[in-house]
Amino acid sequence: MTHSVAILGASGYTGAELIRLISEHPSIKIKALGAFSKAGQKLSEVFSHLRHLDLPDMVAFDTIDWSGIDLCFCALPHKTSQEVIRDLPKTLKIVDLSADFRLRDPADYKTWYGNDHAATQMQAEAVYGLTEFYRDEIAGARLVAGTGCNAATGQFALRPLISAGVIGLDDIILDLKCAVSGAGRSLKENLLHAELSEGYHAYSVGGTHRHLGEFDQEFSKVAGRPVKVQFTPHLIPANRGILATCYVSGETDAVHGALAAAYDAEPFIHVLPKGEAPSTRHIRGSNFCHIGVIGDRIAGRCIVIAALDNLTKGSSGQALQNANLMLGLPETAGLMMAPLFP
Amino acid sequence: MTHSVAILGASGYTGAELIRLISEHPSIKIKALGAFSKAGQKLSEVFSHLRHLDLPDMVAFDTIDWSGIDLCFCALPHKTSQEVIRDLPKTLKIVDLSADFRLRDPADYKTWYGNDHAATQMQAEAVYGLTEFYRDEIAGARLVAGTGCNAATGQFALRPLISAGVIGLDDIILDLKCAVSGAGRSLKENLLHAELSEGYHAYSVGGTHRHLGEFDQEFSKVAGRPVKVQFTPHLIPANRGILATCYVSGETDAVHGALAAAYDAEPFIHVLPKGEAPSTRHIRGSNFCHIGVIGDRIAGRCIVIAALDNLTKGSSGQALQNANLMLGLPETAGLMMAPLFP
Amino acid sequence: MTHSVAILGASGYTGAELIRLISEHPSIKIKALGAFSKAGQKLSEVFSHLRHLDLPDMVAFDTIDWSGIDLCFCALPHKTSQEVIRDLPKTLKIVDLSADFRLRDPADYKTWYGNDHAATQMQAEAVYGLTEFYRDEIAGARLVAGTGCNAATGQFALRPLISAGVIGLDDIILDLKCAVSGAGRSLKENLLHAELSEGYHAYSVGGTHRHLGEFDQEFSKVAGRPVKVQFTPHLIPANRGILATCYVSGETDAVHGALAAAYDAEPFIHVLPKGEAPSTRHIRGSNFCHIGVIGDRIAGRCIVIAALDNLTKGSSGQALQNANLMLGLPETAGLMMAPLFP
Amino acid sequence: MTHSVAILGASGYTGAELIRLISEHPSIKIKALGAFSKAGQKLSEVFSHLRHLDLPDMVAFDTIDWSGIDLCFCALPHKTSQEVIRDLPKTLKIVDLSADFRLRDPADYKTWYGNDHAATQMQAEAVYGLTEFYRDEIAGARLVAGTGCNAATGQFALRPLISAGVIGLDDIILDLKCAVSGAGRSLKENLLHAELSEGYHAYSVGGTHRHLGEFDQEFSKVAGRPVKVQFTPHLIPANRGILATCYVSGETDAVHGALAAAYDAEPFIHVLPKGEAPSTRHIRGSNFCHIGVIGDRIAGRCIVIAALDNLTKGSSGQALQNANLMLGLPETAGLMMAPLFP
Repeated sequence: MTHSVAILGASGYTGAELIRLISEHPSIKIKALGAFSKAGQKLSEVFSHLRHLDLPDMVAFDTIDWSGIDLCFCALPHKTSQEVIRDLPKTLKIVDLSADFRLRDPADYKTWYGNDHAATQMQAEAVYGLTEFYRDEIAGARLVAGTGCNAATGQFALRPLISAGVIGLDDIILDLKCAVSGAGRSLKENLLHAELSEGYHAYSVGGTHRHLGEFDQEFSKVAGRPVKVQFTPHLIPANRGILATCYVSGETDAVHGALAAAYDAEPFIHVLPKGEAPSTRHIRGSNFCHIGVIGDRIAGRCIVIAALDNLTKGSSGQALQNANLMLGLPETAGLMMAPLFP
Repeated sequence: MTHSVAILGASGYTGAELIRLISEHPSIKIKALGAFSKAGQKLSEVFSHLRHLDLPDMVAFDTIDWSGIDLCFCALPHKTSQEVIRDLPKTLKIVDLSADFRLRDPADYKTWYGNDHAATQMQAEAVYGLTEFYRDEIAGARLVAGTGCNAATGQFALRPLISAGVIGLDDIILDLKCAVSGAGRSLKENLLHAELSEGYHAYSVGGTHRHLGEFDQEFSKVAGRPVKVQFTPHLIPANRGILATCYVSGETDAVHGALAAAYDAEPFIHVLPKGEAPSTRHIRGSNFCHIGVIGDRIAGRCIVIAALDNLTKGSSGQALQNANLMLGLPETAGLMMAPLFP
Repeated sequence: MTHSVAILGASGYTGAELIRLISEHPSIKIKALGAFSKAGQKLSEVFSHLRHLDLPDMVAFDTIDWSGIDLCFCALPHKTSQEVIRDLPKTLKIVDLSADFRLRDPADYKTWYGNDHAATQMQAEAVYGLTEFYRDEIAGARLVAGTGCNAATGQFALRPLISAGVIGLDDIILDLKCAVSGAGRSLKENLLHAELSEGYHAYSVGGTHRHLGEFDQEFSKVAGRPVKVQFTPHLIPANRGILATCYVSGETDAVHGALAAAYDAEPFIHVLPKGEAPSTRHIRGSNFCHIGVIGDRIAGRCIVIAALDNLTKGSSGQALQNANLMLGLPETAGLMMAPLFP
Repeated sequence: MTHSVAILGASGYTGAELIRLISEHPSIKIKALGAFSKAGQKLSEVFSHLRHLDLPDMVAFDTIDWSGIDLCFCALPHKTSQEVIRDLPKTLKIVDLSADFRLRDPADYKTWYGNDHAATQMQAEAVYGLTEFYRDEIAGARLVAGTGCNAATGQFALRPLISAGVIGLDDIILDLKCAVSGAGRSLKENLLHAELSEGYHAYSVGGTHRHLGEFDQEFSKVAGRPVKVQFTPHLIPANRGILATCYVSGETDAVHGALAAAYDAEPFIHVLPKGEAPSTRHIRGSNFCHIGVIGDRIAGRCIVIAALDNLTKGSSGQALQNANLMLGLPETAGLMMAPLFP
């Protein structure tokens, strides 16, 4: 049986990535592509790399006929997304890729995003889309909130460790190295090739990055007490990838053991042999996450490093993984492609 | 029905690309991976990005049990390949990715490669693996010689034009821009990141590049008279892609029409609307080739530009496409994945 | 004796490059920096890499006190430049880096740029700033028009050959590979890192690039008859550099000899030994231009390749070289720094 | 007065960088270039970007006439350097860029480098070349040991903080992001463009990187008690630059104040306004180091980030700065060039 989906925000990078993934999915078919400024254009005009696909043109949202559409992916900017989703048919399953439904508490939302939420009542309904940890809720959900790409990477590295009680909770440091596509297709001077190529820097330093809202919410939930981490993202001259280098206190064997146990049956999360460090080049374009654990020379300290592709496992791949669950399909359908290297 | 294959030279880039592609193929299974210096290693040690696959370890060639193997991909260095292929079981179907069986005439081979051929008798038997132009012969062949990646790109742009008689034959110029992976995984100073990144240059200038042997052989065959082109490759700081900018005399409409007609039914070759230029970023990681035709301000001159991924359509994708034909499978099986962008 | 200069358009890449070069110049001092939207900002806010310099803040143009300023560099967008320059004090020496005064004929200007020129009377006065060929006129000029960066590269390769009569004039092809900074710091989707990195393509194909106006003007002037070339620029994922691969008919020895003779005494133009090809990585950040000549296997055909840094020898370095002449300073002052490699 | 120098190991990246810098130095002249495998070659054959310089050919070390040479730069591999330096004339001033004389204690040397030192008696004589902290000793030294590039970066960020007692000593973490040229021009698979570009990873994780020997030695010396830090380097797809993100306990104002005070009069070290983060792109090709201090949302925690160019301030620029002191020249001579951006 084939399920029909729509993608709103099809002209951005996460939209394009959804189309790429779904183009080979055995039982999902794209029935509508929605866009703002690029409404009316053919897919091949917006994304020449998808010109081989026989897909509908981009249209304005309000012209979409929702009958016969089972699920809608919303790959829209933050704040816009909540306004659009609020008004979608209530029978439609929705996977939101924006930040709008990640935080359950309206106050937290306002703290990190600055505005009042336009669909407060739906915040509680939304299930946090970190598939490996919310599988059952996602399968039964109508609205799933895709996680932040940085938030996903950090949680894959640390969540089982907090859960298992094998690391200290008060001195966790996440130093992230993020590729450029995570910033989207927006026109900003600091995203120009001539600005970025051959250089790198930290941004949102000191605890100001919005994905901290997710770390706080989720880590505190798992720990059963408030947990606050230090988190510094860095912008790296590469297109895809997040590498999270996490500094924790804990015994290396216990840390490696807890991660190996937690992900033993997971199809997408691979814990490397103890002492091996992952690389973003080995997960590019795939839905895999590689995690490495290395003990430090200082006793009781260890380094946990997670690598994933921000556009795939960090957003659109995760979204499709969640959609598979919501539609009763095999979770891995359309997602087992190998990474592209070199 | 599932077919079993072996890959010799599995530790190089074209070997890894074959594994990537076959990992999602519906009816081909990898039964053996052969390597020289990396024999004895696990696939995950050689290519960490393929660690999710359940595949045999790399082994020395002479330990492979060929019974039950239907087809062998040889992704070996030039010269080595002919010696290895000469001694393989005669019942085995073979797709060679090296240069060793591309030239039919032993004298031509010696001219371009410098040594006497070690399996002269097989040169005549080998079918030139440019699928779109040798489809029937390939389907019935035992040994198929994969084309050079530059040679494939140039032929996709020009072959139908020579065939249709719509361009002049004595002033054809191919200016190619080639990504780095085409040079393989070999340790050479000029392939280091610090040498290549942020710079570019022409190499093998003036008619010395070996792929000219293929251009001469094939273009002359199609034209029915000797054709010699000018061909200048350039090394570009990118990992995948070939862009062939071809300067020809001819009427733009006739040129565009001849290409559109030739590739109308082809699943992998897309002729862009007249006046549009292709980009390597829009075919990366895929088996597609995009071709553009633009008329020059100088009457009677036009520019034909072809883009493909050297590791996919230029070598391993082509190899799989040919293997599909040789095994009686749908030609596109395992090859319709969308390009990876960004 | 120290000369004082102003830079209008100091917040763009060519402005920053001028500041970089002049910062080590023995006898030129920057007295004013003019900007539009960034007026009022400190240099360190606009260009953090120049924060070590003790320079004035960016100011609006009309607040600059021109008394005591000997020369003004205009690094402004096309069309804006002519309007600004028209109204500058008539006693001021001016080096314009825009396209506005490159074409002498108002009709040609309109053909290539689409609008009527706002300072027609100054078009005739302006000297074309290709230093090596207009040295004497530049030394005596009040207004010098910096050449296009592509136009400079192509002319360095071909001008002495046309002049010496050693190549055919009716089949010249220039295939250029241009780095990204040539497009400036403007916010365009196709200049984003995620769009450009790892891919490349041709643009303005078929004779539509505006620098053709310069090629037509200059090559025809040198030849004493109309000369029209084919010119295809390509955008390469690198920040600095232009590589011009020129296909010409001519005898290799005569071609190499004519170039070697023309540039024998030039401090910035280096003709490589016959058969060697230049690379953009070997001129990056410098005012040098490397030129190689290679004979083709086809008798009577040869390839001339020129490499320079678009921001240095292609614009700001050239501008300073011209300013040196206009101010009676040694032509090479402040310009002999070695390229940055790797 | 002009001083004459020799460079041993002129065919590597630090050798080339020394030549680049000295080529514009007002009072140092290169009299000999020594190399191993490239002895006998012209400089233009080994480094085409330096072809404009009138310099001697590369020669074997034992053919160099040391009379009239005031100072020798040794840009040789570790272990080779000590053997060569041991046998140089005792009257020669020497700046060593290798790791061989950085550690004062022979036991420490053996711990980190594995072999017995071949010139133990010279280890004590050598002055540690971190100019800003050993200025007087360097001015009077005969042998100066250039620091590790990572070691320099970390020390610029942290040394004044340990000295001033404003940070905790038992929980210092250095997360470094290093460009590729730091690994030199050696032929290793993991340094190939196709391996590195578009990906990044941690290496020498867990306290195994040799530069820790320098951190231990120097930080403990400054603190007057043993100090051990955590240090994780990452390889980033860029050619030049080190970014050290340091996590410390301390009050932001005190930390920023201590750094600002320490570097107030330094020509090359710039402390950014509190809250600003540096970028490697803003120091590329220069001898500058930018340092930023940002307070974390967690009280009492702050982040100190230092950026420098590994080939310039991290090795060859530092070496020239030290040579200036040793020769009685102005410390900044030949080193005030602006960074290259973009």
